[in-house]
Amino acid sequence: MVRPHRCKQEEAPVSAIRHALSVKREDDFAQWYQEVISEAEMAEESGVRGCMVIKPWGYGIWERIQRLMDDRIKAAGVTNCYFPLFIPLSYFSKEAEHVEGFAKEMAVVTHHRLIGDGKGGLVPDPEAKLEEPLIVRPTSETVIGAAMARWVQSWRDLPLMVNQWANVVRWEMRTRMFLRTSEFLWQEGHTAHANRDDAMEETLRALEMYRDFAENELAMPVIAGEKPENERFPGAVGTYSIEAMMQDGKALQAGTSHYLGTGFAHAAGIQYQDKEGTQQYAHTTSWGVSTRLVGGMIMVHGDDDGLRVPPMVAPHQIVILPMLRDNDEDEALLAYCEELRKALVGQTALGETVRVLLDKRPGKATQKRWAWVKKGVPLILEIGGRDAAGGQVSMLRRDKLWTEAGKANFVGMAKEDFVARASAEIEDFQASLHAEALARRDANITQLSSFDKLSAFFSDDKRYPGWVEVEWSRPTGAELDAVVQKLKALKLTMRNTPMDAPAATGTCVFTGKPAAERIYVARSY
Amino acid sequence: MVRPHRCKQEEAPVSAIRHALSVKREDDFAQWYQEVISEAEMAEESGVRGCMVIKPWGYGIWERIQRLMDDRIKAAGVTNCYFPLFIPLSYFSKEAEHVEGFAKEMAVVTHHRLIGDGKGGLVPDPEAKLEEPLIVRPTSETVIGAAMARWVQSWRDLPLMVNQWANVVRWEMRTRMFLRTSEFLWQEGHTAHANRDDAMEETLRALEMYRDFAENELAMPVIAGEKPENERFPGAVGTYSIEAMMQDGKALQAGTSHYLGTGFAHAAGIQYQDKEGTQQYAHTTSWGVSTRLVGGMIMVHGDDDGLRVPPMVAPHQIVILPMLRDNDEDEALLAYCEELRKALVGQTALGETVRVLLDKRPGKATQKRWAWVKKGVPLILEIGGRDAAGGQVSMLRRDKLWTEAGKANFVGMAKEDFVARASAEIEDFQASLHAEALARRDANITQLSSFDKLSAFFSDDKRYPGWVEVEWSRPTGAELDAVVQKLKALKLTMRNTPMDAPAATGTCVFTGKPAAERIYVARSY
Repeated sequence: MVRPHRCKQEEAPVSAIRHALSVKREDDFAQWYQEVISEAEMAEESGVRGCMVIKPWGYGIWERIQRLMDDRIKAAGVTNCYFPLFIPLSYFSKEAEHVEGFAKEMAVVTHHRLIGDGKGGLVPDPEAKLEEPLIVRPTSETVIGAAMARWVQSWRDLPLMVNQWANVVRWEMRTRMFLRTSEFLWQEGHTAHANRDDAMEETLRALEMYRDFAENELAMPVIAGEKPENERFPGAVGTYSIEAMMQDGKALQAGTSHYLGTGFAHAAGIQYQDKEGTQQYAHTTSWGVSTRLVGGMIMVHGDDDGLRVPPMVAPHQIVILPMLRDNDEDEALLAYCEELRKALVGQTALGETVRVLLDKRPGKATQKRWAWVKKGVPLILEIGGRDAAGGQVSMLRRDKLWTEAGKANFVGMAKEDFVARASAEIEDFQASLHAEALARRDANITQLSSFDKLSAFFSDDKRYPGWVEVEWSRPTGAELDAVVQKLKALKLTMRNTPMDAPAATGTCVFTGKPAAERIYVARSY
Repeated sequence: MVRPHRCKQEEAPVSAIRHALSVKREDDFAQWYQEVISEAEMAEESGVRGCMVIKPWGYGIWERIQRLMDDRIKAAGVTNCYFPLFIPLSYFSKEAEHVEGFAKEMAVVTHHRLIGDGKGGLVPDPEAKLEEPLIVRPTSETVIGAAMARWVQSWRDLPLMVNQWANVVRWEMRTRMFLRTSEFLWQEGHTAHANRDDAMEETLRALEMYRDFAENELAMPVIAGEKPENERFPGAVGTYSIEAMMQDGKALQAGTSHYLGTGFAHAAGIQYQDKEGTQQYAHTTSWGVSTRLVGGMIMVHGDDDGLRVPPMVAPHQIVILPMLRDNDEDEALLAYCEELRKALVGQTALGETVRVLLDKRPGKATQKRWAWVKKGVPLILEIGGRDAAGGQVSMLRRDKLWTEAGKANFVGMAKEDFVARASAEIEDFQASLHAEALARRDANITQLSSFDKLSAFFSDDKRYPGWVEVEWSRPTGAELDAVVQKLKALKLTMRNTPMDAPAATGTCVFTGKPAAERIYVARSY
């Protein structure tokens, strides 16, 4: 666990608290991650290799991400479309460089019919073999490029800006839920422009949209910057990313935006007639975020009691738990809770109507409480008969879960007082998660001035070392390869060179030449 | 063209109107359908067999359908999830009956990698052949059933109600955009219940949701009823549908809801312990609508000038077209239009903020006007410099497009007056489309009392005969097969037996036995 968090844990005597999860972050982060996903009922193995089932709570968070991101995409003048799941093999053969980057690990459809095998089973029908195999899209540059070539004729058609929400498949040998699955959900924006400047402006607009979304909607601090050349999307002229620090100190690439130059336009034939009547190739971009954001959110905000969901993306911001006793008093209790629910949905927080669930399902209130704690709902209101009679509520705030004595930190107050402060609690919760994550991230970035120091730093026995910021000369070719290999030996990668950073003033830690810029080095997902 | 429409057309001398499309509905309905889709820029061929590209206008309508239907699904207590695209072949082998109904026409993934063929091309890597082929989901009963078996333990877990929005693939030899494509988009609801009554209640709730959605959101009159046994979803105990009449008199099955009994629960092992501690099989349902609804909307509301979109599902309900002249006056004109736009988005129609686009793209105003006419946007406001100076607007309502003299039917009025009546115009447009479609549908249903009359009716030279309503004895087995074959010889199918219909009083037109109920017979998509 990185330092600021460790400090916070130490405020209460560790032995007093019995956490809701069986594995602590600092004991086994990977195992903890799996347990959060399982206990928060976010996703599970599907029985289909590399594919997960996204359960209601996990999918509800993704739906919130989708809707909020979609609003931003539409506000930027980008329109949604839908392109085919299948891409003919020949499209990839045309784009050898493009396919190289995907390591060719793709799902290949070869038949369109099943027949009985004569033994009660089914097999692909040899008579129904496709003349040309179809690839399940790993990304849609090729098929969208072909459409753009049809749609773009004149400068009047530019910029052409489309986006699709879709499932894509990249065959993965080692999978991890939300972070790396064979099938995942994402949005992919694809735009075509008249010239380099317009295309670069769009590339950076999308990057900034992602940065702002991560910070504001997901309360997840990120560094926006340019990826080094070796990490570019195949065929791209420039690849930009947002990078977030997980609680184990590793980096997660949480979104990318690519300036593709005219390479894809040449391959697909995206040409337009300019105002002077000359045929020109368009400059294209693409940019995307995926269900990986959900994995990042877990690893940034989760704690030893499960998930903590930023209110902006929480399907429910408040859950009301009536302590039902299966007797005559239940009716009055439910009426009280329903009245409370109605008062709360009349409130506005973070610019939207407050989202409240009155959980009337059968079951013991304590069990239900801990299920919601593990799911990370920001505010839980437990209401017993005495609360109802006295016009009270008992509030449990997910980010202030324990008393110093290791008890659930319920705060009692009059119902009206809670209704009046609900919006402020929600907004404070969102801000608190961000502040906590930002403080932790900043406390775990170390500036180092030589490769020896860097090497020592990561070979130290610190289990979660965080990130290192160095200056480098932005080498290319064989010189860059050497840097990549040196870092690989330490299980490290370069993440990105931050936008708007102060100029480099020293010497490159890799080459010894004058430094050109700053770059982050880290272990990563 | 069916009758009520033909009458309306005759009000103006036909020769006076030069319609925006090159093909009229009454001349070639299939060709007209393709032209609407192309001219309204809704979708196009993708270059991938059987798959279409859904363009912004078509996808925008689908997004509206999605959002409004999703609100209804959530309001019913159903939660969204996501299940894998791929289903292992063995899941289908287990469900022989289930797979039979899909004619086994499914996309089969057999390899997970491509390699170079040594001649510059790519081929599936023989080393990367999957041990078990994967099927691209044609529907998700099997994989969702397996999840439900994990999730359901006790009566407390019921009802379990989930839905997913997804792409599915059913290999089709003859495709038609939106109506029958190899890949299509849909929602599939899947629910599990403790007993038959609860499951039937949910089956009929979903049916009623679809009926009400078709009538209200799509302005598309439908008959909700039970499909005859021969048209049941494979493995279902009862299949229910909504059926809409297209303008060529054919029926379109626009949504289905299935009561699956305990058959799927037996196959997947969905069992629960009831309150008495006994293991019971759950009763399941499934229900879905797809992008086919977009095709139905086109064929119900389109006319010889293109599409007419019901305002509830129109991405833009009003388009403002400034008549730009590329001179100094453009600025004042745009300012006037922007002021108008702001006033309009302050209005509410059909329970939502009015959706307005100010179309500032370069291009001739007349060309842009006809593009929006063909797209079917309900209200077009053309604003010239003189309008701006005089505080006026010129309104063109898409369902009142022509004057008797065959001119575009612009109505001038003060800007304030239009703002004040915009909401009423939009709501009246929605109601008018429904009333027109309903009158046409009802005028084209003929009650007949014998098979001879039915046979004569459809062998008549009427090109668009509409539907026939008959009474029948609800035969089963071989007797039903004979009915199906007799109708097939006339290219007819039974559509459904309407809910809440008056009891049958006569004799079955097929068997001569006492009739049990009414049923619709029609040509269909």
